Amino acid sequence: MRELPIHIELEPRSGKTLYEQIYEYIREEIRQGNLLQDERLPSARFLSEYLQVSRTTVDMAYGQLVAEGYLVARPKRGYFVGDVRELYNTGMADQQDRTETLQKGKSPGLRYDFSPNAIDMSQFPYATWKKITKNILVDARSHMFALGEPQGDMELRRTICRYLHGSRGVNCDPEQIIVGAGNDFLLLLLEKILGRHIHVAMENPTYIRAYKIFRSFAYPISLIPLDDRGIRVDRLEESGAKLAYVMPSRQYPTGISMPIGRRMELLRWAQGERERYLIEDDYDSEFRYKGKPLPSLQASDRMGRVIYIGTFSKAIAPAIRVSYMVLPYPLLERYRRECGFFSSTVSRIDQTILNEFISEGYFERYLNKMRKLYRTKHDLLLGELRELLQFFSVSGENAGLHVVLTDKRGRSEAALEQAAADADVKVYGMGSFYMEERAGQGAESRMKSRPATMILGYGGLAPEQITEGIERLKGCWM
Amino acid sequence: MRELPIHIELEPRSGKTLYEQIYEYIREEIRQGNLLQDERLPSARFLSEYLQVSRTTVDMAYGQLVAEGYLVARPKRGYFVGDVRELYNTGMADQQDRTETLQKGKSPGLRYDFSPNAIDMSQFPYATWKKITKNILVDARSHMFALGEPQGDMELRRTICRYLHGSRGVNCDPEQIIVGAGNDFLLLLLEKILGRHIHVAMENPTYIRAYKIFRSFAYPISLIPLDDRGIRVDRLEESGAKLAYVMPSRQYPTGISMPIGRRMELLRWAQGERERYLIEDDYDSEFRYKGKPLPSLQASDRMGRVIYIGTFSKAIAPAIRVSYMVLPYPLLERYRRECGFFSSTVSRIDQTILNEFISEGYFERYLNKMRKLYRTKHDLLLGELRELLQFFSVSGENAGLHVVLTDKRGRSEAALEQAAADADVKVYGMGSFYMEERAGQGAESRMKSRPATMILGYGGLAPEQITEGIERLKGCWM
Repeated sequence: MRELPIHIELEPRSGKTLYEQIYEYIREEIRQGNLLQDERLPSARFLSEYLQVSRTTVDMAYGQLVAEGYLVARPKRGYFVGDVRELYNTGMADQQDRTETLQKGKSPGLRYDFSPNAIDMSQFPYATWKKITKNILVDARSHMFALGEPQGDMELRRTICRYLHGSRGVNCDPEQIIVGAGNDFLLLLLEKILGRHIHVAMENPTYIRAYKIFRSFAYPISLIPLDDRGIRVDRLEESGAKLAYVMPSRQYPTGISMPIGRRMELLRWAQGERERYLIEDDYDSEFRYKGKPLPSLQASDRMGRVIYIGTFSKAIAPAIRVSYMVLPYPLLERYRRECGFFSSTVSRIDQTILNEFISEGYFERYLNKMRKLYRTKHDLLLGELRELLQFFSVSGENAGLHVVLTDKRGRSEAALEQAAADADVKVYGMGSFYMEERAGQGAESRMKSRPATMILGYGGLAPEQITEGIERLKGCWM
Repeated sequence: MRELPIHIELEPRSGKTLYEQIYEYIREEIRQGNLLQDERLPSARFLSEYLQVSRTTVDMAYGQLVAEGYLVARPKRGYFVGDVRELYNTGMADQQDRTETLQKGKSPGLRYDFSPNAIDMSQFPYATWKKITKNILVDARSHMFALGEPQGDMELRRTICRYLHGSRGVNCDPEQIIVGAGNDFLLLLLEKILGRHIHVAMENPTYIRAYKIFRSFAYPISLIPLDDRGIRVDRLEESGAKLAYVMPSRQYPTGISMPIGRRMELLRWAQGERERYLIEDDYDSEFRYKGKPLPSLQASDRMGRVIYIGTFSKAIAPAIRVSYMVLPYPLLERYRRECGFFSSTVSRIDQTILNEFISEGYFERYLNKMRKLYRTKHDLLLGELRELLQFFSVSGENAGLHVVLTDKRGRSEAALEQAAADADVKVYGMGSFYMEERAGQGAESRMKSRPATMILGYGGLAPEQITEGIERLKGCWM
C-alpha cells in the first residue's frame, strides 16, 4: 500500500463533529485531485486507530462518501476513490430534481446556487407538524398501523379532492384519486395502467426526470417544440403520439403559462382519437404572485382525457412523500381491474398527519406565508436584475420559483455558465433541458438557432444571497 | 326515483357511531340483495335531512361504502349499488395479501377467519413507537424534511445490513441495499433494472400478488412444480427461464423449508448461464418455533446471482411501508446507471424512526415477544387439531403463521371450504394458489391428482377463537 494519503488534523473545538471533519477532508482531497480515481483508502479500522477516533465515526464518514459517490466500496477489498466525472453527472441529475432543498456540502457546489429546484424550508411549521403527529399517535391504535386502501385512505382522498377543486378547479370524486409515494411511483403505476409501447410526446425543453422515466418504460418519445403559448399542437398531431406529458399552468423550465386557446386545442387533440390521453403535471401551481392562476387543464376536460398529477413535496416538504393522481373513469376501471392489487406506498400514519395538516387549515396558512416569502424573493431578484436587462430579456416571472434570462448578444450558454462559475455563482443553461442537446444530438445547430437562455432559481436562497449573487453576475456578464 | 329504500333505525345508545350504523345498514341491504346492482341511493343531502344527522356523517358512510366497492359514485348523478360479484373477487384478492390485519367488517367475512395473512398487532409497542417519533421530531430540523438518497438513508441501510447479516446471514454492503415503500414498489423498480420480457419462473403454488405483478410486467411466466424439498430445479432448467422467484426459507403457501442440497442446486442453476438471477423473497423468516432457521439463500451465493427482498410490514406492522432489496453488484451498477433517478418512496422521518426502533434494540425485543405469542398460538392450534389428524396430515408447521392440512379421504377443497363456511369458519383451499387452477385451466385434472389441501392461518386469531374455530371444523369435517 502506498503511503497513507490521509493527514487530517482533527479539531475537537471546531464546532464540527469528528465525522464531518473526516468526511470533508477526504471529499476535498478528492475534489482537488489529491486522491485519484481507483486509489485505495486506508481501511476504516486502520484509520480509526490512526486518528484515535471510534470505528463508527470513520464508518459514517466513509459511508457518507460512498453514498455521495466520492468513494466506492468493493467487498472484501476496501474503499476506493470513485469516478468523479460520473459524480458531476450525478450532481447535474440531482439539480434537475424539482424538489431539492439545499444542503450544505451535499454536492460539489458553488457558493451562490440559483438552482430552480431549491425550496425554502425556513418557515415550515415544524411545531405544528410535531403537534399533529403527537396527537395522532396518542389516538392511534392498531387500525392506524394496518395496511390502508391501495388508492389511499378515503379521508385523505376526500381532503385532496376538496383542495384540488377549490384551488385548481379539478373536477373529480375521491374514488378517482390515487395517493402514492411520489410522482415517480405514480408514473410507474400509470405505465401498468396505460400499457406498453405507448408513444408519448413531451414538451421540449422539459422536466428531465419525467423524460428518464418514460425512457425507462421504453416508450417511444417525441419531443415537441414550444412557441410562446406552449406546446405546438400541430407538431403534436404530426408526431402520432397517443399520450402527451404537459405542464400547462407553468411549463418547466420555460415558465410558460398556457393560455386557454391553446388548452382547448390540446383537449381537442386528445379527443381526436380513442385512447389519447394528456398527463397534466401541475407541479408548482401553488405559487403565483400576480394575477389569478388559470384553473387546471383537467378542469376544462369534459371527455375524461386528462390524468392530473400533483405533489405535496414542493408545497409542503420534499420529505412528505405524498403525490396524487386523478384518473379519468375509463382508466380508473382499468386500474381497478389490472392494478388494484399494488398496495399503497404511503403509511396510514403519514396519510393521517397530512390529512389533518390540510383539513385543519394549516396547509392553506403555510401556503399563504410561502407565497409572501417567495414573492419577496421574486421581487428582489427582478429588482436586482434591472441593470442586466439591457443584455437579457426576462421571462417566466410572476410565478413559480425561477425566472428565465435570454441573452441578446449572441453569447453561448457555456460561456455564461463558466463566467458565472468563475465568480462562484451557479446558473443553469437551458440547453441541458433540451433532450437532444443533452444527448449531444443536433446541439450544434440548435444552439446556433436558439439564443443562450439561463435559468435562475431563487426559492432556496436567502435575500442577501440573491443580492450578492446577482451583483457577481453583473460583474461578469455585463 | 323509486321509494326510498333506506329505513334505518338509528340507535344513539347502541355503542356504535351514527356513521357506522348507516354504513352497516346499507352494507347489509346490499349483501342480502335488498339493494341491487345499479340501484340508485338517495342523495347524501336527502338522507342526512331524512335521518336528521349531519351531512358529514352520511358522506363518511357513503365514502366508506364506495371505498369498499359496495357503492359506486357517478359524478353529477349520485351513488349507485356496485357490482357485488366483483366485490367478492376483490375480497379474495385481499385475502391473498400476506400482510393484512383483520379489521372488523372490512369485507363480507365469516366469524372465524383462519387467514394465512392476518397478523397480531395487540403487542405492538405503540408507546415506544410514539416516544421515538416524538424524540425524532424534537430534534428534527429541515434536513429531516428534505428528500433523502434514492436508495434510502445510509444510516438505515447500515442498520438493515447489520440486522440481515446477524439474523439471516446475508452478505452485503449498505450500498447494495435499496429501501422502498413496499415489495410491490421494489419489484416495479426491479423490472426497470432487469429489463423487459424476462422469462420468470415461479413456484407453483405461489404468492399470488407477486404472480399478478409479474403478469403486469408482461413477463412470460413458467409455473414450476414443487416436491417435498421445494422447487424442482430439473423442471426449472427445462423451462428456459432466466429469473426465478423463490421463497426458500418458508415457501408460501406450502410452508416448505428448502434444504441446503436443493439450495445448492438452485444456485448452480443460476450460475449455469450469464444473466440468470434468483429473487429470494424472505417474507416471514422472523418466525420460527423449533430448530434454527437456515440462513438465507443469499448467504450461500458467491456469484452475485441472488436478489434478496424482505419487508418490515409483517414483522413490525403493515403500515410501516418499508421493504428492502439487496442487489448483487452487477445489478447495482445497472440500477445506478439506469434507475438511480427514481426518488425514494420512504420519507426520511419514517426511515429515521425505523432506524431508531431497530438500532436501539426495540425490534429485537418485539420480535422475541411475537415469537413467543405466535408459538403459543401455533402450539394451541396443533393441540386442537390432534383429533382431526386421523383424516388430515399436517405440514408447514413450526414456523410462520399458518399450517397446511392435507385431506386423506378424497374430499374436494370446495366441499371442505363450504362445510366450514356453513359453520361460520373461513379456511383457504390450496387450489386458489395454483395459478392455472385459479384461471380454470387444467383445474379438473389437477384436482384429481392432488388431494384437497387446506390452509389454516392463526396469526390474527385470539386463542379462544382458535379453539372455537377448530371445534367447529371438527364438527363439520369429521
